Amino acid sequence: MGTHIDAPAHFYKGSWRTQQIPIERLMGPGVIINIKDKAVRDPDYRIVMDDVIAYEDKYGRIPDGSIIMMNSGWFERFPDKNAVFNTQNVSDTTTFHFPGFHEDAVEWLIFNRHIYAVGGDTPSFDYGQSQTFPVHILIGRENVIGIENAAYLDRIPESGSTIFIPVVKIDDGSGGPTRLMATYDDGTDSPANSAELPQIALTIILFTICFGFVRI
Amino acid sequence: MGTHIDAPAHFYKGSWRTQQIPIERLMGPGVIINIKDKAVRDPDYRIVMDDVIAYEDKYGRIPDGSIIMMNSGWFERFPDKNAVFNTQNVSDTTTFHFPGFHEDAVEWLIFNRHIYAVGGDTPSFDYGQSQTFPVHILIGRENVIGIENAAYLDRIPESGSTIFIPVVKIDDGSGGPTRLMATYDDGTDSPANSAELPQIALTIILFTICFGFVRI
Ligand SMILES: [Zn+2]
Ligand SMILES: [Zn+2]
Repeated sequence: MGTHIDAPAHFYKGSWRTQQIPIERLMGPGVIINIKDKAVRDPDYRIVMDDVIAYEDKYGRIPDGSIIMMNSGWFERFPDKNAVFNTQNVSDTTTFHFPGFHEDAVEWLIFNRHIYAVGGDTPSFDYGQSQTFPVHILIGRENVIGIENAAYLDRIPESGSTIFIPVVKIDDGSGGPTRLMATYDDGTDSPANSAELPQIALTIILFTICFGFVRI
Repeated sequence: MGTHIDAPAHFYKGSWRTQQIPIERLMGPGVIINIKDKAVRDPDYRIVMDDVIAYEDKYGRIPDGSIIMMNSGWFERFPDKNAVFNTQNVSDTTTFHFPGFHEDAVEWLIFNRHIYAVGGDTPSFDYGQSQTFPVHILIGRENVIGIENAAYLDRIPESGSTIFIPVVKIDDGSGGPTRLMATYDDGTDSPANSAELPQIALTIILFTICFGFVRI
């Protein structure tokens, strides 16, 4: 269903359900990993450690509590279901071909960078060909939030934003729709004090897709 | 339905529908007007110009683009429908008794302070006894957002916060559920640069009620 989160409980019993996620976990530094060129060449691409290392080489150490977002260019395919799932048969999950994350990279990010959330602009952060959903199980166990079907990731800087994941607080939910937002300093102001900052100096970008899709 | 917004189109044809609201309008300085004592004495209380003047006397000029929130203490009554609507018959809207805003105060705030949104912790920003919904019509005409059934307003400062209204982007909607959030400087840090501010120095409070209620 459009842009949504998977609560940690989605694939791991006993982890946080939607209403149990601490509010502090619904925001964090935005880390946008751009794999658009790779996804064009290989729709089954998964983000691996080399991509994480390349990001840190360019932008510096990924801050603790970050929100890791894959920008694969997949957003452009919405709302065409066949294009999004990259198949002629959206009922057959074995035919899906879209990019995601390799579990080794996510595990490293969880234990070495203590990320709060991971996801991107495809219907699942496990890639389309996955049948075992290792990233879903891993992040569920570690109480990390998953994000699916994000949009407009091109409009925010790859480093330096703050991403908000304000999921609707569905009681006992295993996930829920979210109006994903990001703020960043657009350079048009230099506020004298911190209280003014979120009100004046930041520009908001928002990315939500509002067509129904299969949730994986 | 729990915490939600009324889009301007909710009571005014041609005004913004949910997906048309500019993203910049979904955040602004938080202005919390506390009328808890007055609401105890008079459940039909409406916020009037005197309340607005008293607020500015205490906290200074209300910034342009503010989000005006009534804290009437009504949140404590959720999820008891009879208590929230303050009636023995929740099917009969003429028996409702809960506080709201007087249209004169809202009109002044719109034309003199250029507010982005107005609402509070009751099921409607027009008070319970209203049969004509003048505030709904007024804010609809002026493309101002309405907020209903907010919670935990006691947890954020009456002045100095930033409130986010990240409504789910329902296509062609006349409103929608929102995970209302506020950030503010909690004084535990003095970040050296602005980029760190939203990530480190702010504390988040969130207020959402997740039980179903009649939307007015
Ligand atoms: Zn999922
Ligand atoms: Zn209403």
